[in-house]
Parts: sequence; structure tokens; C-alpha cells
Amino acid sequence: MATIVKLLGSVGSPFVIRVQIALKLKGIEYKYVEEKLGHLSETLLRYNPIYKMVPVLVHNEKPVSESRVILEYIDETWKQNPILPSDPYKRALDRFWAKFLDEKCMAAAVKSLFITDEKEREKSRKELFEALQFLENKLNDKFFGGEEIGFVDIAALFIPLFQQVAELQLVPGDKFPKLHKWSQEFYNHPVVKEIMPTKEQQFGYFKARAASIAAANNAAASK
Amino acid sequence: MATIVKLLGSVGSPFVIRVQIALKLKGIEYKYVEEKLGHLSETLLRYNPIYKMVPVLVHNEKPVSESRVILEYIDETWKQNPILPSDPYKRALDRFWAKFLDEKCMAAAVKSLFITDEKEREKSRKELFEALQFLENKLNDKFFGGEEIGFVDIAALFIPLFQQVAELQLVPGDKFPKLHKWSQEFYNHPVVKEIMPTKEQQFGYFKARAASIAAANNAAASK
Repeated sequence: MATIVKLLGSVGSPFVIRVQIALKLKGIEYKYVEEKLGHLSETLLRYNPIYKMVPVLVHNEKPVSESRVILEYIDETWKQNPILPSDPYKRALDRFWAKFLDEKCMAAAVKSLFITDEKEREKSRKELFEALQFLENKLNDKFFGGEEIGFVDIAALFIPLFQQVAELQLVPGDKFPKLHKWSQEFYNHPVVKEIMPTKEQQFGYFKARAASIAAANNAAASK
Repeated sequence: MATIVKLLGSVGSPFVIRVQIALKLKGIEYKYVEEKLGHLSETLLRYNPIYKMVPVLVHNEKPVSESRVILEYIDETWKQNPILPSDPYKRALDRFWAKFLDEKCMAAAVKSLFITDEKEREKSRKELFEALQFLENKLNDKFFGGEEIGFVDIAALFIPLFQQVAELQLVPGDKFPKLHKWSQEFYNHPVVKEIMPTKEQQFGYFKARAASIAAANNAAASK
């Protein structure tokens, strides 16, 4: 029998890990296919011709891309262990915060990791801390999803991930006590623990990602 | 009795028009409250302290912001005349395309309208046309939603909107015959027609928006 669920990913990508955690929480068996950044397969390019990026979830031969879209697809397709709440207002809030995490927090976090100009890096760090303060204020339970991991927790996983690899204190305990505790709780959740890459794998991903961005920039500059 | 549904908006904002069309399609009565760009009300800032932007939908005193999040909230709260399809895979595709419209098409369209540097404007126009080609290829029915207006149509409304005000051929008929026809069909839909602002209102919005962006940039530069 053909594999029904396939995931095209790259080890260390926070967007791919999101999908892996969701599939694991739901108990869905899947085949993982590693894509090499900078040398993506024909299959990946056919499935995601617009963004040319991982993750792509393939279910019954039909591809879904963009991690937040994939998470919602998984939650609507397999109903067990819901990732989003059932109440429309709470669902709206979860979507709002996940979008906020991508647009405001992750972008600033990546900049504070990779930008070499010290002044620019400081600026990103300030932006990141301002954004994280909103999350700190919002967090009232063990997880954003309450007693269990939910959509916002999964979206926020880059916080403990980046922290592990960069030895960068994204959520220092004295500044963000609730997020700091959340970060540890999340990391120690059995499903998360099983999926999170090792420090070495994570380094490998960042290196490949930086090289692929540099190559794209060089190609654009030489046009 | 207190107003149950309120919409904080600014006439001419494509994001606000999205919400107005969705409410109208669903037949929901609501109170519209105009917000002046650059002089937002205390209420708006309290309801949307993070982005400080319209639209904000307030339902039973509870605020929802970010237009795509609001559209999904409306669709889940009032079930009549669905905006999103019921099938999970089709829902995922709709979410993918709406996100793509915001991230790739609208950003490029705004740049091709506002950037004064000719070379940069040309670059944005090229990016926009590349992105629109994907939409052209996707469109097979009267609307993206099939025979009726759906999530992707509502997300794409900036195309006829910008076209009307800027006399900018975003979707010239010889280049994008299907999108060109769609743009006219969409604009002539009775619900859309009733809600779309006049050319003068639209000009007013662009002027206020440009002024408010310039003011924010000046404030940032003088810090």
C-alpha cells in the first residue's frame, strides 16, 4: 500500500518541527522525506512551486504547504487531540497569536541571531523583547493552549529551539518569568522532546539556511 | 439594547472592505465606526494594542483583529452563506491563496503604486506580475469560490479596488484575461458594488495612509 501521509522537511527547520509535533500529537503515522536546502528535489518544486520551501505535507497525493495552513489542515482532518479550541472566539485569538509570532517575533529573533551589524542587531533585539512582552502578558496557564499544547505553543517553538542552539537567552527568566517557565515545560513535553533536533542538527540547519540565503542574494545581485 | 456587532474601520481600507463584504454576505447587521488614520480613537488602541490598526470587529464586546482572522471568525460564528468551503483540503488551499495574496501580491501592488523611484517601481511591478500569473493559472470558474464569492475572492478585492483609483492596470486583459474578467465580475456583484468606496473616498484613504506612514517614519527617524 502506498504511504498515505508524507512530510517533506529539513531537519532543524522550526516550520517542519511544527508539523512533526502536530502529527505526533494526533498519532498519525507518516513517511518523512529529507530535503536538502539549496538542492531541493523535483518533487518539492512540483508540490510547492510558489514558495519552493519545506514543509510540504502530502496526504493522499495532495500537497499542502505553509506551516500554519498545514497545522489547520491536520486539525480539521484528524479530529483527535484538538490543536485549536472549538470556540470560534478562542480560535480567532489562537490564529491571531500564531500570526503575530511569525510576523513579529520570529522575524526579529532571526535578525537578532544572524545580523552581524551590532547596532541593527540591538534594534532587532529591542523589537523582539517588545513583542515577547505581549506574549508574557498573555500567558496564564502551563501552556498557551491551557493544560495541553495547542496551536500557539506549536507556533512558538522557535523560542526554545533558537535558545538551545544559539545560547541566546531569548526569554531570560528575570525579564520574562512566565515565558521562561513555559519554554522549559514545552521542551520537556514528551512529544516535543522526541522531535526536537539535537544541537548539532540545529547548527547544521542554520548553516545551510544561511548559505542558501547568501546564494540567493548573490544570484539576485548578479542579475 | 446594546449593539452586538461593531466594526471599527476607515473608509477605503481594503482590509476593512473585506470584513464589510463578509458581514453583508452573511446578512449581519452591524454598527460601523469610522477611525481616522493618524488619530486613532482610545477604543481602537485598547482593542488592538499590538497592531494599532483597523479593522477591528467587536462582537459581544470582544474584539477580533487582522482581516483574515476576522473573516474566519465570521464564517465560524454565522454559518449561513459559507465563505470557506467545508472540505479540509479546499479550506487549506483557500487559506494558502489568501495568505499568498497578502504576502506576495498586495505588498508588490502597494509598492508599484507608491514608490517614486522608477527602477524600484518597475521591479515591484515585475514581482507583482509574476505573482498574479499563479492566480491567473488557478482561476477556473466565475469566482475563486466557484459560482459564489469566497475567501480568496474577498482577499483579492484590492485588485479591482486599486485599479479603480489608480488607473493602474493591475490585471490588463491581454496579459491576464481570466483575472481581468474576474475583476469585472467581482466588482459588479451586488454585495460588492454596494460596499466598494467611491474613487474620491479611495483617494482620501491613500492620502491619509501615505501621510500616516510618513509621520511614523519621521517619528522613528527622530528617535
